[in-house]
Amino acid sequence: MNSIDTVLNTIDSNLDASLGRLFNLLKIESISTDPAYKDSCKQAGQSLVDMLNELGFDASLRETPGHPMVVAHHDGQQGAPHVLFYGHYDVQPIDPIELWDTAPFEPTVKEVNGAKRIYARGSSDDKGQLMTFVEACRGWKDATGALPCKVTILFEGEEESGSPSLEPFLESAADELKCDIALVCDTSMWDANTPAITTALRGMSSDEVTIHAASRDLHSGYYGGAAQNPIHVLSKILAEMHDESGAVTLEGFYDGVDETPDNIKQMWEGLGFSAQDFMGEVGLSMPSGEANRSVLEQTWARPTAEVNGISGGYTGEGFKTVIAAQASAKVSFRLVGKQDPHKVAAAFRKHIEDRLPEDCRATFKEHGRNPATQLDYNMPELKKAAKALSEEWGKDTAIIAGGGSIPIVGNFRAQLGMESLLIGYALSDDAIHSPNEKYEVKSYHKGTRSWARVLAALAE
Amino acid sequence: MNSIDTVLNTIDSNLDASLGRLFNLLKIESISTDPAYKDSCKQAGQSLVDMLNELGFDASLRETPGHPMVVAHHDGQQGAPHVLFYGHYDVQPIDPIELWDTAPFEPTVKEVNGAKRIYARGSSDDKGQLMTFVEACRGWKDATGALPCKVTILFEGEEESGSPSLEPFLESAADELKCDIALVCDTSMWDANTPAITTALRGMSSDEVTIHAASRDLHSGYYGGAAQNPIHVLSKILAEMHDESGAVTLEGFYDGVDETPDNIKQMWEGLGFSAQDFMGEVGLSMPSGEANRSVLEQTWARPTAEVNGISGGYTGEGFKTVIAAQASAKVSFRLVGKQDPHKVAAAFRKHIEDRLPEDCRATFKEHGRNPATQLDYNMPELKKAAKALSEEWGKDTAIIAGGGSIPIVGNFRAQLGMESLLIGYALSDDAIHSPNEKYEVKSYHKGTRSWARVLAALAE
Repeated sequence: MNSIDTVLNTIDSNLDASLGRLFNLLKIESISTDPAYKDSCKQAGQSLVDMLNELGFDASLRETPGHPMVVAHHDGQQGAPHVLFYGHYDVQPIDPIELWDTAPFEPTVKEVNGAKRIYARGSSDDKGQLMTFVEACRGWKDATGALPCKVTILFEGEEESGSPSLEPFLESAADELKCDIALVCDTSMWDANTPAITTALRGMSSDEVTIHAASRDLHSGYYGGAAQNPIHVLSKILAEMHDESGAVTLEGFYDGVDETPDNIKQMWEGLGFSAQDFMGEVGLSMPSGEANRSVLEQTWARPTAEVNGISGGYTGEGFKTVIAAQASAKVSFRLVGKQDPHKVAAAFRKHIEDRLPEDCRATFKEHGRNPATQLDYNMPELKKAAKALSEEWGKDTAIIAGGGSIPIVGNFRAQLGMESLLIGYALSDDAIHSPNEKYEVKSYHKGTRSWARVLAALAE
Repeated sequence: MNSIDTVLNTIDSNLDASLGRLFNLLKIESISTDPAYKDSCKQAGQSLVDMLNELGFDASLRETPGHPMVVAHHDGQQGAPHVLFYGHYDVQPIDPIELWDTAPFEPTVKEVNGAKRIYARGSSDDKGQLMTFVEACRGWKDATGALPCKVTILFEGEEESGSPSLEPFLESAADELKCDIALVCDTSMWDANTPAITTALRGMSSDEVTIHAASRDLHSGYYGGAAQNPIHVLSKILAEMHDESGAVTLEGFYDGVDETPDNIKQMWEGLGFSAQDFMGEVGLSMPSGEANRSVLEQTWARPTAEVNGISGGYTGEGFKTVIAAQASAKVSFRLVGKQDPHKVAAAFRKHIEDRLPEDCRATFKEHGRNPATQLDYNMPELKKAAKALSEEWGKDTAIIAGGGSIPIVGNFRAQLGMESLLIGYALSDDAIHSPNEKYEVKSYHKGTRSWARVLAALAE
């Protein structure tokens, strides 16, 4: 029996004990956004430190202005890569509590359609997921006394509250945290049977713009017909952000946007994704947006301009014949490839300034600038990890992208010069951030086995 | 001495007593919108009934589901027209009370720049104004024992709270209230020395439209690029309501809009109106809107389309990357001439329906439909009243229009088939609806004299 089989057997034998350790962690009410749970957050961090030290890591709690970080180091095989594993021990609030069928911090296993599920806040996002890696390390240590790769672990306690301490912490601990590659376990499978590696995430540039006209709200009887209406000005500016084909009109917007390679597009087409189901689920019959692009391309590989909010004038009950002094919109751009968020923001401002009529001015509030991340599809670590996952799940690993942003990946790249492999075992029905969050016992068990295999593969 | 001079002398001699009667009325806290002042409203109506009966009118209080109406009749000269005088005895609330320099219901006379002013809630809007007519009648009665015209008076107690009882009351009392012409005293002079008759008022058609797309708010990371964004759809629809020249693009919108006669336009040009001052006062440097139209034309004689409010998506603090399920706008059209508000509303709906993309639908909430009113510039009563005012003020009477709506005028025309002469002595700095509302003693005194002259002129 080679070592990986021994490790997998060990993991299988110890599943119940492993679940017990997960449950202990799930019982800690580590809601990061609510100051009332500050001590619980620290307790969750400390319990992970203790667990990792017991496993032979050199682990410690690192204070930040917010909740502490957990940092741990463990040696690996000579010549094997040094990996940084990232997860977060904090969880979302539990409101509305009345919609939970079981207590959110009393992990409960239930069988649904023949599959065992762990119900608890954080079971999927992200305590269950981060524990798959810890337990994979335990499997290696129990079975072989060593880890195949040199491993550094970073657990954050503020992911669900905007990660305010992350960037300064990475800055100060850069030497300690810089590894060959990061492994991030905070994403989903493609479906319940198909493992996935997320290789691209869209970035974002977001701003609030306010168009100002008169110095105060005006009576539309006295001034209507003569005075600038900033809602009209804003509507026109926003309407001109897209052309008839659905493309974004900002100058230079598509600079740095590459076409998706044909082989990747073919793989996506083979995933069995149904655009009709995806749109139908939210009451739409067809994709709009850029013409002649599939929905997966539109949401994974193409940049967007979306107005996320608009307001101006009287918006209460009834009617008020006012010409507003100002009108505002919150606008975000999802970015792909090498689009520069700062250039996109500048082009947005120029789009507006170029269209401002006499007597109007625009003010802006910056809300965020993150570049997209895109792995090299030919990266050896990607291929090794994909192969390891395929062996565990008995199916080709889906090489997918994500339409949203996972800021940590941008931080690792920008601050530590390190690419990330995003591998996770969550399912789309895990109800993360919602009542009755769950994680499949199968996700937990096979997720642990998957990491054991990935560590072996990366070490080869 | 002919009778008008005797009447004017009588008015002059009795000014102090007349002011005393006005002050008694101003002391009554007849705030119609607040149910706590229900008894005060009735008291104000009753005091007017008593006053009119004392003057020889046949006056009575008429109950409505809200505050009562005052109706009074008095005979006039054989062959003279029968006029209906309208005013309202209710007043606006007094908040914010801390901004008043004197108690709002304790009328106080102060001299400012050599002119005496009456400070009190309702001093200008509309108790002071309606009393000018009552006191003009008193002048006639005291001096001659008779009135030159047959006079019916209607005082309303709900003008400041939307006039809910007005339409049904006019309906039920139509026979009693139908006269040859209505005189309405609820408007302003052109300036402190120039009397004015308002001959046109814009009508209005107003609706709220909501554009619906997905069945729920969507995450712009997952759906952005593929899902319809109703804010985009709404912005485009609203942007397309005006063309490059500022004209409204709705089909048939300008049907029933006549050009203003050249002689009226010339009179307006001679009024000394400064577009720069008018716009400058609210922080704008120049008129926008329809090209090649003066501001007075734009606001008095041209119809408009204005978005009075817009909302959709996330509009709170910070940012939320949501694609909204719906977006709404409150849109009003100011109407002139013979524009049909129902046709305008239908054209607005068609404008939207024609532009709805796949997967979007629109719902509407109707908010109001009033046609414009436009007097015949050659109406004999208009000429007589204008001449009478000119004689009192020593200046040509400005024949002006109003950009807003005064619903009573539409009701008189639609329900009683009666035109209205809008004559008032308020000034633009009277602070109606605001703290420290005032009325010039000169407005009160010369306003009373003006009505005495107008009654004589109409009887000729």
